[in-house]
Amino acid sequence: MQVLFLGTGAGMPSKQRNTSALALKLHEERGAIWLFDCGEAVQHQILETTIKPRKIEKIFITHMHGDHIFGLPGLLGSRSFQGGDVPLDLYGPKELKEYVETTLRLSRTHLTYPIRFHEVIEGVIFEDKTMTVEAGLLEHVIPTYGYRIKQKPLLPKLDMNKAMQLGVPKGPLLAKLKAGETVELEDGRNVKSSDVTEPAEPGFTVTILGDTQYCSKSEHLSKDADLVVHEATFDGETEKLAKDYGHSTILDAATVASRAQAQKLIVNHVSARFMPEHEKELLKNMRKVHEDSEIAHDFDEFDWVKKDRKMVKITGH
Amino acid sequence: MQVLFLGTGAGMPSKQRNTSALALKLHEERGAIWLFDCGEAVQHQILETTIKPRKIEKIFITHMHGDHIFGLPGLLGSRSFQGGDVPLDLYGPKELKEYVETTLRLSRTHLTYPIRFHEVIEGVIFEDKTMTVEAGLLEHVIPTYGYRIKQKPLLPKLDMNKAMQLGVPKGPLLAKLKAGETVELEDGRNVKSSDVTEPAEPGFTVTILGDTQYCSKSEHLSKDADLVVHEATFDGETEKLAKDYGHSTILDAATVASRAQAQKLIVNHVSARFMPEHEKELLKNMRKVHEDSEIAHDFDEFDWVKKDRKMVKITGH
Ligand SMILES: [Zn+2]
Ligand SMILES: [Zn+2]
Repeated sequence: MQVLFLGTGAGMPSKQRNTSALALKLHEERGAIWLFDCGEAVQHQILETTIKPRKIEKIFITHMHGDHIFGLPGLLGSRSFQGGDVPLDLYGPKELKEYVETTLRLSRTHLTYPIRFHEVIEGVIFEDKTMTVEAGLLEHVIPTYGYRIKQKPLLPKLDMNKAMQLGVPKGPLLAKLKAGETVELEDGRNVKSSDVTEPAEPGFTVTILGDTQYCSKSEHLSKDADLVVHEATFDGETEKLAKDYGHSTILDAATVASRAQAQKLIVNHVSARFMPEHEKELLKNMRKVHEDSEIAHDFDEFDWVKKDRKMVKITGH
Repeated sequence: MQVLFLGTGAGMPSKQRNTSALALKLHEERGAIWLFDCGEAVQHQILETTIKPRKIEKIFITHMHGDHIFGLPGLLGSRSFQGGDVPLDLYGPKELKEYVETTLRLSRTHLTYPIRFHEVIEGVIFEDKTMTVEAGLLEHVIPTYGYRIKQKPLLPKLDMNKAMQLGVPKGPLLAKLKAGETVELEDGRNVKSSDVTEPAEPGFTVTILGDTQYCSKSEHLSKDADLVVHEATFDGETEKLAKDYGHSTILDAATVASRAQAQKLIVNHVSARFMPEHEKELLKNMRKVHEDSEIAHDFDEFDWVKKDRKMVKITGH
């Protein structure tokens, strides 16, 4: 799993930062990509990456502000044009369906694949054998959701040496042991799954929050997460503005991550007010509250290193 | 007047070409900018130029395909955010109003300025003391307009030496002469405007066409124009495809310009199939049909040199 930031700015694009979009690359886990928010020109950003639009399986929209949705119609059209034929699942607030249907209808965009709309409500909004996604309502000027993406524990890993020592023959018995069952060998001995497997590793938890002021729901969704992506539209000096506009400061974000005992925090939705030369100072202040913190830039990518249970920056700034 | 290409590609953005948008810079003529089409990320392209969104006075949309309108909601929002308070005139097909109103409403974009919608029909759609805009219906798969922008003849230029020789005093009489009137001097002599002015220069005519297959309306709108901007989605080898999709080849465009006896032709809406290495060959073929021809690239800019009555490339490729 990798997390790739496609747009890390707030409100309007700037030369440094595009509006909100993030790719959760689940190639290894499910051969697919999930997107979170689609600010204008997300498809242009994707042109600079290895992402294939037809590999996008699900898109989660946090809220209906333009800087989070204006890139969606273009991306949907291009996914079609580039040979996408697999259904696309779209998750978001109630109005998302009207937005997508109206823009596609008026622009005569005929998709080669069906869209399945899922109106988001609080709670588990998706679950299959590998992943669970839970949504929670944050505190912004309009309904805005945060998403907690949890990978289910991986299958136990078979220790072939141990299995052979115990005389388990190659074939279906091995699959049963791997699936957690106890099997009986030809000579009547029983072999338990735990005799020949290493314990199942827990999966990762990534929490991706939409625009919000400091709130307890953010903390709840971020509990013990391996990565929290939290907005930071303002810095400490503009705390008053943050409250007025339903946004967070960089210290609000750090406080959420710290109280939730999350591992890494990456802040996005960063104001154009943050000058690159101030970043060091901002990072220092953030890290006093939550040590493992970063400020995201467009095209920063972080990789989940399973054995260390850590997100490690692999490209970008 | 300058013409600045902000997006010269067809259908989808590529690394080389963004989707359709063109700025007609009328700083000298009316202190304003007119845009023609707003493909996605036109506001991102504008960030790379000196254009101030609040200076955009009118936007003309040729047709409702996504590659011509998906950048409009974002641009309207940013014009507001950047202090635009002057009304904006929007010209386009009937459905444009629903598109703009729905996207702004659902994205909670509150503009600081009013939009005045003008549903385009064939004929003169705008006229004031400096400019006339005529619209004509082209031949594409959906209703698509071409626009002919005509600057009115400039005011006659006063020859101060001649005026003084004839004894015209400084003051209001000079203004009357400049406005074309005959005046009576204190000693009873009459002075005609033509005695003290150089003849009015004709203005420029620029024709900007939307997506279309070869059609006589294109020729009509382009008649004697100083500049024609015509689409060329296909080259000669893909002529059959052009007809099927309601588009033109590069030779169709050249034929229109030639038959209309237009001065310069610039083709845009160029397929990603056109490789830079083929451009020389394409240009050679075009110029056999219409000598003064160019293939537009993003950020190419052409300046109207009044005394030579010519569009001259000032930046770009
Ligand atoms: Zn936002
Ligand atoms: Zn087009």
